[in-house]
Amino acid sequence: MGDETPRRYILTLTCPDRTGIVAGVGSFIASNGGLITQAAQHGDALHNRFYMRVEIQADTLPFYLDELRERFAPVAKQFDMEWSVSDSSVKKRMLVLVSKLDHCLNDLLHRWRNKDLHCEIPCVISNHNDLRSFVEWHGIPFFHVPVTPDTKTQAYAEVERLFREFSGDFMVLARYMQVLSDDMTQRLRNRIINIHHSFLPAFVGGKPYHQAFERGVKMTGATSHYVTAELDAGPIIEQGVIDIDHGNSIEEMVRLGKDIEKSVLSRSVRLHLEDRILVHRNKTVVFK
Amino acid sequence: MGDETPRRYILTLTCPDRTGIVAGVGSFIASNGGLITQAAQHGDALHNRFYMRVEIQADTLPFYLDELRERFAPVAKQFDMEWSVSDSSVKKRMLVLVSKLDHCLNDLLHRWRNKDLHCEIPCVISNHNDLRSFVEWHGIPFFHVPVTPDTKTQAYAEVERLFREFSGDFMVLARYMQVLSDDMTQRLRNRIINIHHSFLPAFVGGKPYHQAFERGVKMTGATSHYVTAELDAGPIIEQGVIDIDHGNSIEEMVRLGKDIEKSVLSRSVRLHLEDRILVHRNKTVVFK
Amino acid sequence: MGDETPRRYILTLTCPDRTGIVAGVGSFIASNGGLITQAAQHGDALHNRFYMRVEIQADTLPFYLDELRERFAPVAKQFDMEWSVSDSSVKKRMLVLVSKLDHCLNDLLHRWRNKDLHCEIPCVISNHNDLRSFVEWHGIPFFHVPVTPDTKTQAYAEVERLFREFSGDFMVLARYMQVLSDDMTQRLRNRIINIHHSFLPAFVGGKPYHQAFERGVKMTGATSHYVTAELDAGPIIEQGVIDIDHGNSIEEMVRLGKDIEKSVLSRSVRLHLEDRILVHRNKTVVFK
Amino acid sequence: MGDETPRRYILTLTCPDRTGIVAGVGSFIASNGGLITQAAQHGDALHNRFYMRVEIQADTLPFYLDELRERFAPVAKQFDMEWSVSDSSVKKRMLVLVSKLDHCLNDLLHRWRNKDLHCEIPCVISNHNDLRSFVEWHGIPFFHVPVTPDTKTQAYAEVERLFREFSGDFMVLARYMQVLSDDMTQRLRNRIINIHHSFLPAFVGGKPYHQAFERGVKMTGATSHYVTAELDAGPIIEQGVIDIDHGNSIEEMVRLGKDIEKSVLSRSVRLHLEDRILVHRNKTVVFK
Repeated sequence: MGDETPRRYILTLTCPDRTGIVAGVGSFIASNGGLITQAAQHGDALHNRFYMRVEIQADTLPFYLDELRERFAPVAKQFDMEWSVSDSSVKKRMLVLVSKLDHCLNDLLHRWRNKDLHCEIPCVISNHNDLRSFVEWHGIPFFHVPVTPDTKTQAYAEVERLFREFSGDFMVLARYMQVLSDDMTQRLRNRIINIHHSFLPAFVGGKPYHQAFERGVKMTGATSHYVTAELDAGPIIEQGVIDIDHGNSIEEMVRLGKDIEKSVLSRSVRLHLEDRILVHRNKTVVFK
Repeated sequence: MGDETPRRYILTLTCPDRTGIVAGVGSFIASNGGLITQAAQHGDALHNRFYMRVEIQADTLPFYLDELRERFAPVAKQFDMEWSVSDSSVKKRMLVLVSKLDHCLNDLLHRWRNKDLHCEIPCVISNHNDLRSFVEWHGIPFFHVPVTPDTKTQAYAEVERLFREFSGDFMVLARYMQVLSDDMTQRLRNRIINIHHSFLPAFVGGKPYHQAFERGVKMTGATSHYVTAELDAGPIIEQGVIDIDHGNSIEEMVRLGKDIEKSVLSRSVRLHLEDRILVHRNKTVVFK
Repeated sequence: MGDETPRRYILTLTCPDRTGIVAGVGSFIASNGGLITQAAQHGDALHNRFYMRVEIQADTLPFYLDELRERFAPVAKQFDMEWSVSDSSVKKRMLVLVSKLDHCLNDLLHRWRNKDLHCEIPCVISNHNDLRSFVEWHGIPFFHVPVTPDTKTQAYAEVERLFREFSGDFMVLARYMQVLSDDMTQRLRNRIINIHHSFLPAFVGGKPYHQAFERGVKMTGATSHYVTAELDAGPIIEQGVIDIDHGNSIEEMVRLGKDIEKSVLSRSVRLHLEDRILVHRNKTVVFK
Repeated sequence: MGDETPRRYILTLTCPDRTGIVAGVGSFIASNGGLITQAAQHGDALHNRFYMRVEIQADTLPFYLDELRERFAPVAKQFDMEWSVSDSSVKKRMLVLVSKLDHCLNDLLHRWRNKDLHCEIPCVISNHNDLRSFVEWHGIPFFHVPVTPDTKTQAYAEVERLFREFSGDFMVLARYMQVLSDDMTQRLRNRIINIHHSFLPAFVGGKPYHQAFERGVKMTGATSHYVTAELDAGPIIEQGVIDIDHGNSIEEMVRLGKDIEKSVLSRSVRLHLEDRILVHRNKTVVFK
């Protein structure tokens, strides 16, 4: 969705499934004159849980976001909803963390400067200094926060401080080769997106391409997920694969893998920016 | 969806887009106690047209299909809807037309006998006699209706007669190598599904693999569509492709193409059976 | 390759890599007037190992298979090759083992009766009786060999006896839901092809779709491999995946998975029939 | 292949098919002590034509490129070969032409600065000035050569002059929205790579996404090809597709298409750089 799409309010909700939810939400919107431009819902029969995402054309409502929230609260309460509303005209603020490999960063920055990703990038943080010039060419502040075994605690505190200082909405680990602290991932639950360079749950950990080569698989993949305390075990957002064969060395697998890593990551970022991902019980509902 | 899924009524509709449609439909269902098990909608901003598909768990409504239709009519009228309701417990009756190539037929019959396709196959019609034994092994009547340049008119009249006699709901041309008459395709508009062995609109007509070989393309495909009077120009339902290269002879392209033809066709049949395809202005809206 | 392709001898070999192998093989063939119709080679630099597959048009050689083998032996010895030669006009004999799910069997039999798979199927063996009629319609003998915890040893002895009696070249486990004995897999090393319903090494064992559903993956897959003593750990031949999402129940994953299982299996069988798979150190080199 | 791969000579050839070509080439290499690190061949039975590509580890030969060429000439003459040899340590010089859309340029420059594409980029030429800063950040000269209906002839003369001045080996039209002159495409036959934003031969010309939207296709694609005088009709190198549906506006198709355009183009550039593409009769043989 580009900037020229009319402003929309995006309502996402989940609640126990029962009769009348669509009617309740639909009638609330219609009674206020709201035009629904997109809607999707999912009923999880196994857990009797309902999920919904609705886009409302903002100028069809006779009030603004705050009042929309206020007026919707009783409906939400009636159905015991977890819910939120966002405004498509307010760009989310995404911090990017990166190490030395820049294919994901390059891809994200390109989409950002072409307005293909509708967000702000207030700063980029790296444990190395290599990518400073490239980031700064974009007019984006670059922070070098080195991480050593001894300074991990201070380093992550600094990362989180920058996240607060720059009013970050979420973080993207664009091949950031460090494992964040447990309590930080707790505080930023469902707000840190990581790209792992394997088809999870196969090949958890630091050397997935080596593992894949050893096993002789015929495809390799990439997986984006929200970061949780357990390594590479958070809710999966997107996955992708590419064919490989006996002729591909580990180095070639690394090179080929980059393409699928960056495309899986950027698709995930877009889904997050458009509030299309709902998380429940370590699994995602993704309304594409 | 297998037989064990609870019985559902499936409502599909299209109408000019405006405020209140979701509320109108949702409230109608909720006010009668109906539980929505699945819903999808699409607003075509360019043509200001709205499309919707709703599944309602049948036993949550206090009446049957006829009364549902009767009660919904005023809502439909209010929004100027084209609409229909079907009952998941009533299997659609699918006639299959085939010539000599049997990969699509084999695939459809396999899915049917495994209850992966929820339909009746009242008979199979062919312009050749080769596949009689295979069809009859399934306990399905087989009709040999030869087609020659001189007998086309009578042959198609016989096909249409069989369609009426066996109370067909729709026909599948499973690599039926004959072009049906214009008036028959008019009468059965959006009720005849064809599989074309190319990635339309490339390579219209009878020898697509030869054309693809000559052009040196690196992928070949298959396209399913509803049959219209203009050859290979009807509303597209599904498409699929496979990689080929310089090493593939035309014979191998034919062989490789079969796999994509049968999978595109069977996916299309499933979508049609589940009332997931809405047609407007020679294009489809497909709610997957 | 259909029956109409000219008869070919297929030479496959592997040996330590060094200068002159291609020249040695090429000169041997050329000096006897042989025309190479296809050739592929692979040098594994990491393990200094060379792999090659050559097709020679049979009628360009002035002798038959036995003499070809005899004459080539000194060349093979010079380079310390493991090697074999097969004759495209001699169909391999493939035994199919199956339980109750018939999608893979149906696919294999269809390709066989259409001559898309160039092999003999001397018999089908099952631990259930359900598929007898379908198999026998094809004119293929069907053997019901029940397997219970108490009779495993006798049952597998009977399977192996049938394999010998019918002069089987290899076996295909077409969703055969039994784990063969270790010594049988040893004796038939690289001669038993299994299809596993996950993207190995993810989700080893008996309930991969349930595991995939629990983990919330966004793709599911299938893997064919040669059977070894360790469960689902043999050399991988082919893999395939399909997209899934939150809306897919386990039942739907099972249904969707069947399509990828059968296509991965049939591609693997074709590769095996055409002597395109070389195995070394639990990994395959596949010349497509 | 990265810079750390040992230096190789790459021999490509095509000639009428007959007995002894592999032996002739193999023996020539072996008799000089050469180690083949990779080889691929293709026999086109329909046109009785043979194609081959061989990589020889350079330091295993007792002479350099010039002498290799001199010594091979008699072998080539014997078999009536069209042939060439290149040196992997000599980077090809690629000029990039671009207009305003920068996704392909961004992708190529990223791969170049990461040494994922083993080439020189002596300059970038554009008919607009927008991308100057980005190109110059890389330290690459940028030339603005405006093209208007009146100045086409001079403009293309200037482009060709720059190509000569910078000793270009080939040109890449990275979404360059101008049609080059016929005589320039003749002079640079098989040395200009274009990316077309459709699945050719569907949707030739300037507005393929609009055409695709109108037709209601369910996939859209991209095609790379060598430029010839006839628009979008040159030998196809690579193709790729992505799924779309009724929900995608033309703007979204444009956005989604960019990803497949850039990946198809960069794969093609790599194949060209590694001398993996042989052209004959407006079709390519691509040894991957």
